[in-house]
Amino acid sequence: MKKYAVLLAGCGVYDGSEIHEATFALLSIAQNGAEYQCFAPNKNQHHVINHLTGQEMPETRNVLVESARIARGNIKDLKELDATQFDGLVMPGGFGAAKNWSKWAFEGPQGEVDPDVKKTILDFVALGKPICALCIAPAVVAKALEGSPFTAEVTLGSTAEPSPYDIAGTHQAVATLGVKPVEKTLREVHLDTKARIITAPCYMMEGHITDIYANVKMAIDLLVSL
Amino acid sequence: MKKYAVLLAGCGVYDGSEIHEATFALLSIAQNGAEYQCFAPNKNQHHVINHLTGQEMPETRNVLVESARIARGNIKDLKELDATQFDGLVMPGGFGAAKNWSKWAFEGPQGEVDPDVKKTILDFVALGKPICALCIAPAVVAKALEGSPFTAEVTLGSTAEPSPYDIAGTHQAVATLGVKPVEKTLREVHLDTKARIITAPCYMMEGHITDIYANVKMAIDLLVSL
Repeated sequence: MKKYAVLLAGCGVYDGSEIHEATFALLSIAQNGAEYQCFAPNKNQHHVINHLTGQEMPETRNVLVESARIARGNIKDLKELDATQFDGLVMPGGFGAAKNWSKWAFEGPQGEVDPDVKKTILDFVALGKPICALCIAPAVVAKALEGSPFTAEVTLGSTAEPSPYDIAGTHQAVATLGVKPVEKTLREVHLDTKARIITAPCYMMEGHITDIYANVKMAIDLLVSL
Repeated sequence: MKKYAVLLAGCGVYDGSEIHEATFALLSIAQNGAEYQCFAPNKNQHHVINHLTGQEMPETRNVLVESARIARGNIKDLKELDATQFDGLVMPGGFGAAKNWSKWAFEGPQGEVDPDVKKTILDFVALGKPICALCIAPAVVAKALEGSPFTAEVTLGSTAEPSPYDIAGTHQAVATLGVKPVEKTLREVHLDTKARIITAPCYMMEGHITDIYANVKMAIDLLVSL
């Protein structure tokens, strides 16, 4: 039975992992008859966002502890992740990817990736094991690959369809890191056959929850088929 | 297009709404071509549980603010819910149902239901509009119906298959409130045709995430078909 590591970044779209994407990733892995183990960095979140108002809250929350909400308590410290024990890595989106795994949300392509997250991404790529990165997570993969022997084609969405974000600008930004951005709609995923990196737009695009499930499932189905 | 009110109780199985059940409920409603609007009580959670350790944390969190994480910010104060504007009510499970909507987790069938939650349940039943209650949420429905002109058959699971909880004891407890408990497995849902209340065991039973999705979807498919 194939087993995938799922990397979380907190619990909630604005300061952690996007809950629908993360939940659908777990479901899709299981629907493929595969297993998963969740992981998250054991460190404080960059900040806490009130998801009702969008305002920052004067609180401190831990990424691993909050990620445990999505994982129903079954989660481990990212430092325990051994890439040799898994068939691939799954990285759901949400601002936590750009705030807790990296500083992309604040510094764009200059923002460094958390050392344990960077090591994890490079370990999987070096082992030739596939990575499935959803939504904004491909930007973190791109930054982790910068200066490494590896590169990839990644998508962060399509400029041809409605998005709440600046897809063209994000594609230009990841291109400065040496990866090649590829336009894909919410009904498509992209596979870089050499680096074995699958990327899917998910909530980078305006979409219905049914579209998000379909896009996540398409990406995970492809991952498990590799 | 049918539209359902989805009542949340926070964000996380041990002190709020169970995230998988809530997410699958939203997905299933949308998969049926129906719409949803999320609501939650605007009050503090009973407490905050560290989902990694199971221990209580010295924090205060608001039910509506935390529920907004599951709803991606698109949620309203329960006090704004007008049952005449919806085709039915969906109540996912998680300990938040038994800690924030009611005191079931601490006082069993003696624990009072939050007045706004109770009013909402009774409003839908009085209007003949269906309620779909998942996991432990049927215990809150049972307590809300106590002393009202209404009664129902509800399930909280099956004693014939593995469960992390005391299904027989929970069934005995709800029976003291005047409802009739019915044994159902994770592959079944129960419809009370008179009160139009659908109940489904979900995570009251030991189950794989694929079983939970199937059970939630079966319940919501039935709800939308009514």
